[in-house]
Amino acid sequence: MKIVTSNHHFKHAPDIELIPGNVGAIFEKPERAKIVHDNLLAAKIGPMIEPAPFEEQSVLAVHTAAYYQFLCGAHDEWRKLQIDNNPLPCVWPLHRMRPNKPDSFIARLGSFFFDGTAPITGGTAEAAKVASSIATTATDAVTAGDNAAFALCRPPGHHAGADYGGGYCFLNNAAIAAQRLLDSGASKVALLDVDYHHGNGTQDIFYSRPDVFFASVHGDPVDEFPYYTGYADETGSHKGEGFNLNIPLAKGSNFEQWQSAVLHCTKRITDYKADALVVSLGLDTFKDDPISFFTLETGDYLKVGQLLASLKLPTVLVFEGGYAVDDLGKNTANVLLGFENN
Amino acid sequence: MKIVTSNHHFKHAPDIELIPGNVGAIFEKPERAKIVHDNLLAAKIGPMIEPAPFEEQSVLAVHTAAYYQFLCGAHDEWRKLQIDNNPLPCVWPLHRMRPNKPDSFIARLGSFFFDGTAPITGGTAEAAKVASSIATTATDAVTAGDNAAFALCRPPGHHAGADYGGGYCFLNNAAIAAQRLLDSGASKVALLDVDYHHGNGTQDIFYSRPDVFFASVHGDPVDEFPYYTGYADETGSHKGEGFNLNIPLAKGSNFEQWQSAVLHCTKRITDYKADALVVSLGLDTFKDDPISFFTLETGDYLKVGQLLASLKLPTVLVFEGGYAVDDLGKNTANVLLGFENN
Repeated sequence: MKIVTSNHHFKHAPDIELIPGNVGAIFEKPERAKIVHDNLLAAKIGPMIEPAPFEEQSVLAVHTAAYYQFLCGAHDEWRKLQIDNNPLPCVWPLHRMRPNKPDSFIARLGSFFFDGTAPITGGTAEAAKVASSIATTATDAVTAGDNAAFALCRPPGHHAGADYGGGYCFLNNAAIAAQRLLDSGASKVALLDVDYHHGNGTQDIFYSRPDVFFASVHGDPVDEFPYYTGYADETGSHKGEGFNLNIPLAKGSNFEQWQSAVLHCTKRITDYKADALVVSLGLDTFKDDPISFFTLETGDYLKVGQLLASLKLPTVLVFEGGYAVDDLGKNTANVLLGFENN
Repeated sequence: MKIVTSNHHFKHAPDIELIPGNVGAIFEKPERAKIVHDNLLAAKIGPMIEPAPFEEQSVLAVHTAAYYQFLCGAHDEWRKLQIDNNPLPCVWPLHRMRPNKPDSFIARLGSFFFDGTAPITGGTAEAAKVASSIATTATDAVTAGDNAAFALCRPPGHHAGADYGGGYCFLNNAAIAAQRLLDSGASKVALLDVDYHHGNGTQDIFYSRPDVFFASVHGDPVDEFPYYTGYADETGSHKGEGFNLNIPLAKGSNFEQWQSAVLHCTKRITDYKADALVVSLGLDTFKDDPISFFTLETGDYLKVGQLLASLKLPTVLVFEGGYAVDDLGKNTANVLLGFENN
C-alpha cells in the first residue's frame, strides 16, 4: 500500500509537556515517525510518496476558522509577549468564566487548548498542515481505487476537536480524511479509533452526525487521558444518536480482551454498511508503552492488521499515538503487513 | 486594630506553579505572611490574636459542599494514585467535555481548579481552613464593635469561586467574611478588592445578589490574570445587576490613576449605603511586584489606608496578594497605619 510521508513533521519538536503535578520531557517527538518510516522502508512496504500541496479547505471542513487561524498565528503572537519557551496555556475558562476574549492571547490560548501537551512551536502550524495533507493524499489514493493507504502523519490528530487542540494534537487528520471521503462521494464512513486514548476530538466533530460512525476502544477515561470523554454512555446526539460507540477497557487489558472489543466495533461497522473506513492507528496499546497500559505484543499487531482488513473496505490508515519508540516501527510495520496479507 | 494571625499557613508551602509555557518557583509562599506579621509586630500595630476554632458552616455558606469536600480529600486521593509532586491539574473540561466525572480524580481536579497555581499539599486544606477562621474571627471582632480588624490570612482567597479554586486560592476568605457580616445582621455589605488581579472568585460568588456590592480595581484582564473576567461590562446579573463594578487599568498605572479609580469605587459604595466593608487587600499594586505592573510606592500605602478609612464603615481587611516580599511588610503596615490615623 502507499505510504504518504514527509519530513516536515521534524519542524514540530517541542521539549516539554504538562503532566500531573509538573512538566516533563514530551513523549510525542519526531523520532516516533522517523522510526516508523525507517522500519517500513526496511520492510519494503510502499511505495512511499510525498503529500500533495496543502489545501486549507480540507482543514476548514472539520475545524472552525477561528481555531485554525489562532493556530497559524499563535507562535508569532506569543513571541510578541516576550515570554520564554513555547506557547502552553496556563489558565482555562472554567465554569462561568468568559472564554475566547478576543483581545487576550492568553485567554484564547486556554480556550483553544484543553491541556498542556500541545506546545505551539515556530514550526508547529506548518507541520500540522503538512500532516493534514498527508491524510488527504492517502485518502485520495483510496478514493482513486487503492485498497488502502497509510498516512504517516505527525503531529497526531484524534484529540483535536472542531475548535480546540490538546493531547499532542492540533488538526484532526483522521477526521479530515473521513470528511474528504464524504466530500469525494462516499455516503457513509466508519472511523475506527484503536489508539489507547479516547479520540475525543473525532467524537466531538461527528457527534451529532449520522454520516460518520465513530467507534473507539481505549483505556477507561476514569483512569486515563482525556478523562472527560470516552465513556460508554456517549452514543451520539441528535441525528448522530446511535452512531458513536465507545468501549473503554480497564488498565492491563490483554490482546484477547482488546480484540473482543474491536470485534464488537467491526460488527457494528459491518451493520452500518460503510462505504469506506478510516482507522485512527495508535500503537500505544503496546505492552511497553510508557504512558499507556494495555499489553499487546509485537506479534499481535499482525493480527490487528488482519482484523482491520477483515472489514473489506477501502481503508485510510492514519497514524496517531504510540510512545514506545524502539518498538514502534516494528509494531506499525506488522499492522500494515497483517493488513496486506489478509 | 486587632490583627488575627496564625502559624498554620506554614503548612501550605508548595514549590512550583504553572506559568505560561512552563512551571516556575511559586510566588505565593509562607514568607509573605511572615514578613507582614513581623512588620506589624515591630510597628506595634495590634493586638495580635489567634483565630477562633474553624467552623465548617462559614465555608459552606459560600462554597459548594462538593468543592469543599474535594479540597479536603484531594491530597490523600492523589497519594493513592502514586504520582509524584503535589496535585496540579493537567487537563481541563473545555467546551463540550463532561466536567466533574465523579469516579475520576484527575477529571475532578481539572473541574475544580482553573489553573496550575494552586498545588494541594498535605497541609493545604488545613491552612485554608485556618485562613477562613482568621477571616471570620476578624469579622466577629468588627461585628462586636471594633472599628476595623485585619485578617492576616494565607493562602489568599479572592480567585476562589463557589465551586472552584485557582490563582493561589482555595477558600474565599473575603467572601466568607462578607457572608458572615450578613449572617450577623448586616443588610448590605460592600466588598472592595484592591488586589492587582481581578477577584474573579468573589465576583462569581455574589454576581447575582444585591446584598453584596463588589467593586474591584485591577490590571486589565486583556493582559493580566485571570484573563477571563474583570472586564468593565461585568455589572452583575439577575437581582445582582448593577451591584458589580470592575475598573480595569492599564499596565504601568501610577498611584494617581489608581486612586482615581478607587475613588470612583468608594463613591459607588457610599451611594450603596453599605452597613459594613470588606477589603480584599492585595499589595501587588507595588512598583516592584514581580508579577504585577502598577507603580505604587511604599509611601502611597499610607494614603491607601486613609482612602479605605474615609468610607467610615466597620471594616474587615483581608490579606490577599503581594509578592515583592522584602517590601510587603512595610507596605501592609502603612495601609493599617494610614487607616488608623485617618
